[in-house]
Amino acid sequence: MHNTEKFMKSLRLSEIAKIVGGELVGAEDPVITGGAGIDAAGPGDLTFLAHGSFGRALADSQAAAVLVGPDLEVGIPAIRVPDPYEAFALYLELFLTDLDRVFPPGIHSTAVIDPTADVSRAQAIGPYSVIGPGTVVGAGSRLGTHVVLGSDVVIGDECLIYAGVILRENCLVGSRVIIHAGVILGSDGFGYFPGAQGIRKIPQVGIVEIRDDVEIGAGSCIDRATTGRTVVGQGSKVDNLVQIGHNVVIGKTCSLSAQTGIGGSSTLEDGVTTGGQVGIADHVKLGAGVKVGAQSGVTKSIEAGQTLFGTPAVDFKESFRLFANLRRLPELMNRVRRLEQGNGSGPDESEDNKHNVEGQG
Amino acid sequence: MHNTEKFMKSLRLSEIAKIVGGELVGAEDPVITGGAGIDAAGPGDLTFLAHGSFGRALADSQAAAVLVGPDLEVGIPAIRVPDPYEAFALYLELFLTDLDRVFPPGIHSTAVIDPTADVSRAQAIGPYSVIGPGTVVGAGSRLGTHVVLGSDVVIGDECLIYAGVILRENCLVGSRVIIHAGVILGSDGFGYFPGAQGIRKIPQVGIVEIRDDVEIGAGSCIDRATTGRTVVGQGSKVDNLVQIGHNVVIGKTCSLSAQTGIGGSSTLEDGVTTGGQVGIADHVKLGAGVKVGAQSGVTKSIEAGQTLFGTPAVDFKESFRLFANLRRLPELMNRVRRLEQGNGSGPDESEDNKHNVEGQG
Amino acid sequence: MHNTEKFMKSLRLSEIAKIVGGELVGAEDPVITGGAGIDAAGPGDLTFLAHGSFGRALADSQAAAVLVGPDLEVGIPAIRVPDPYEAFALYLELFLTDLDRVFPPGIHSTAVIDPTADVSRAQAIGPYSVIGPGTVVGAGSRLGTHVVLGSDVVIGDECLIYAGVILRENCLVGSRVIIHAGVILGSDGFGYFPGAQGIRKIPQVGIVEIRDDVEIGAGSCIDRATTGRTVVGQGSKVDNLVQIGHNVVIGKTCSLSAQTGIGGSSTLEDGVTTGGQVGIADHVKLGAGVKVGAQSGVTKSIEAGQTLFGTPAVDFKESFRLFANLRRLPELMNRVRRLEQGNGSGPDESEDNKHNVEGQG
Repeated sequence: MHNTEKFMKSLRLSEIAKIVGGELVGAEDPVITGGAGIDAAGPGDLTFLAHGSFGRALADSQAAAVLVGPDLEVGIPAIRVPDPYEAFALYLELFLTDLDRVFPPGIHSTAVIDPTADVSRAQAIGPYSVIGPGTVVGAGSRLGTHVVLGSDVVIGDECLIYAGVILRENCLVGSRVIIHAGVILGSDGFGYFPGAQGIRKIPQVGIVEIRDDVEIGAGSCIDRATTGRTVVGQGSKVDNLVQIGHNVVIGKTCSLSAQTGIGGSSTLEDGVTTGGQVGIADHVKLGAGVKVGAQSGVTKSIEAGQTLFGTPAVDFKESFRLFANLRRLPELMNRVRRLEQGNGSGPDESEDNKHNVEGQG
Repeated sequence: MHNTEKFMKSLRLSEIAKIVGGELVGAEDPVITGGAGIDAAGPGDLTFLAHGSFGRALADSQAAAVLVGPDLEVGIPAIRVPDPYEAFALYLELFLTDLDRVFPPGIHSTAVIDPTADVSRAQAIGPYSVIGPGTVVGAGSRLGTHVVLGSDVVIGDECLIYAGVILRENCLVGSRVIIHAGVILGSDGFGYFPGAQGIRKIPQVGIVEIRDDVEIGAGSCIDRATTGRTVVGQGSKVDNLVQIGHNVVIGKTCSLSAQTGIGGSSTLEDGVTTGGQVGIADHVKLGAGVKVGAQSGVTKSIEAGQTLFGTPAVDFKESFRLFANLRRLPELMNRVRRLEQGNGSGPDESEDNKHNVEGQG
Repeated sequence: MHNTEKFMKSLRLSEIAKIVGGELVGAEDPVITGGAGIDAAGPGDLTFLAHGSFGRALADSQAAAVLVGPDLEVGIPAIRVPDPYEAFALYLELFLTDLDRVFPPGIHSTAVIDPTADVSRAQAIGPYSVIGPGTVVGAGSRLGTHVVLGSDVVIGDECLIYAGVILRENCLVGSRVIIHAGVILGSDGFGYFPGAQGIRKIPQVGIVEIRDDVEIGAGSCIDRATTGRTVVGQGSKVDNLVQIGHNVVIGKTCSLSAQTGIGGSSTLEDGVTTGGQVGIADHVKLGAGVKVGAQSGVTKSIEAGQTLFGTPAVDFKESFRLFANLRRLPELMNRVRRLEQGNGSGPDESEDNKHNVEGQG
């Protein structure tokens, strides 16, 4: 027998309704094979409508059924619940591998704990983890296999720290923080002084501080400050392979998609979001709620609430217009040619123009 | 004595001919100091011409000699063999460090193997590797140092898994798969629900499935699906530091260059290739054989067979033309100025134009 | 008591003057709370003026005080010293965690050292590090926790190798090299041969050579050569999550910012610098001192001394002008429209134009 089918199984919608404490709406009782957010849901999936959503959000969804709040009418099979998100999480958690299997409780006999460290309240420390002198792990926190905490690190309560995570000396982590495999916190910032005898290193003596409820994706790197602190604010979410430079300060509930890079000493105020592969220069400030589209490069400070795109990043509507205009250049060139030939009117029919007609909206 | 010269040594072309079972062509017998594909070959290198290639492919190559098939005539020293690629691999393998030195056979005494795991057919498990409950390693597979397999992982036969690789619970790996150092498979997808009390996590209960003959480069991260599977198809090759989001499905024999990032729930059909640092949005589909140039950003679904470039990515010929046109803008501006001054004809001689003459092809 | 205040403390400028062996200039004696380079310095920070700098460099700085050389007059509180950089490093090092705490001296009892390896001169080898057969570690070098050195690796003298670093077989590292956590050196290059039966791997039998005084940032990957060597030259600095392909040759004192990627077989001559997320194609050569702006994509060889920006990268002044011109397109379109309507003169006042006025410099 293969082990692949044991972690997810099909359920009737009515069974799910019982499990999440909701009420089946409508006559149909489809088989549900998975679940996803409303944008990602495919055939067979259960999805959910957040509080305040409208049923028409379902129009483009392939979902087989939906979890809805008290007052919403929808056109597909549904379960009515007080809090659709809570019910959805409850449904998915049916299939979540038990934390005690991923992080077996207790301190593994092979973990190397410095006698001056305090891990007495930790829920789990995995094989071959190494905890340095003066380090403290809070109540209920779980550390996986091969986790390395340097000296004088502080980890708060109820954290999950996956395999292979490395935190260097003096770094601080709040409570309910999730750090995924291979994350590196507190490596030296990239600070040099271009001297006469070559490039000379500026000692990096600050720390990294990760506040409560942050989640950091696999393989991401957050550098320690030159002096002071590199900060990731409460509730912010950082995706995989993200680079955060020294002395960066990130506010609350920001969301940084994969492979984003933030240059040294920049500030992101609360609620900033970046798409994948965004680059933000050093020494800039992004105001609260700024949204930066994927692959954009932000070269200067941006006021709160703006939505940006492109490199260099400008207002997304301007960016889209710039690109549309660029595609209209062949047409414009033809029009100028006609003017030069003394014929300034009428549509252009040249071959060059036809190639680009798609861009002329 | 330094150890750097022992892993590669110079050989006469005639000696190589003997080793690979081929016939020396021509009167010359140069000393060969290395080998490379035809594009990368430098002076002293042996290269090879694939079945179906033409000799003129050598015109731009600096190679000292070439391995050729039965029917091809070439203008440089050569060895004639039935299968040039096989012979070339045979030549390079002369210098490959023995696998038994890289992955010493047997299960190292420090490996922590859960009693419910089955590693009885593994060829090698390195020091301090940790194998979780219910996990199975196939026949002849070799795991290096510090490899972490979570619970209920399945690894097929004849795999090579290098140092520091982490696979989380329930993930599946086929046969003859090569996973390079520091790869992380099965970390949580970046899925959140923007609720009233902040950003809330969507449980990620799916898995990652890596099919037969895949190779994954160092430091790459492939996230587990929200539900269901994130898939890398048979024979696909993934370079270093690549990010593959949750629920992505990659077809057969795709090739993703370094630092490429693929957003959640996107699909790449068979034979898609990306250059370095390519970004692909979430929820898009790239048809079979689509090629995406380096650093491009694909924002929407693309039909099979297209070649794209730019951000947003468009047909590569259009992209190149757009850039050429952009460089011609100063000239166009001058022409409009002349028209406005009542002089619409003749070449423009302004300073502004001269700066851009290179772009006016 | 929280541990966060013990690694940095406020000092009077006069106290710092005593410690660094300098002379207090001016009547003020401010409290200094940190330090940073002149661009990054904020209120309370001590900064320094390099030899040959001018005092006016301070005009835009928020620094509270500055370390200056013998002949410079400045308008803010200062300490006069023979060598400002040395004095600044001395000040910061006050707060640097002692290396003996980060890398406790001696070979940890859990380190697995092959009997044919020579680590007799190493200063420190951390818990669970694994040293392969034939490998040599030089005098005074310190290896952290979970470091993996494959077979026949050579590490020079006085190196710092942080936790979780992996060097594969045969790689060479010079002296005074700093390798940050999670770096992977010597993984296979991404070399394949597109054969009839799918993608076939080209054996990668070369090595990586890291020369003296190099520093490599967390999570970066440098691939071994197909044959021969991938080289990082003396004194070069590589930031986090950088990808360096097989057979790349990097000269002396180059500086590669985070998430830069360099394609196979490319050459960077001495003193090349890249901003973050730069991509450099394979098989190109960047002449000495070339500077590449953040997120740029270099597609062809570049002569020494050039400064580039954009994708495809062109001279930075042209790149900025191209973008400014692009933003002037709506205005140009209006002017052409007016010409077509028989009205070629006078400023344009359309709404479209007003939106873009910012880009018309």
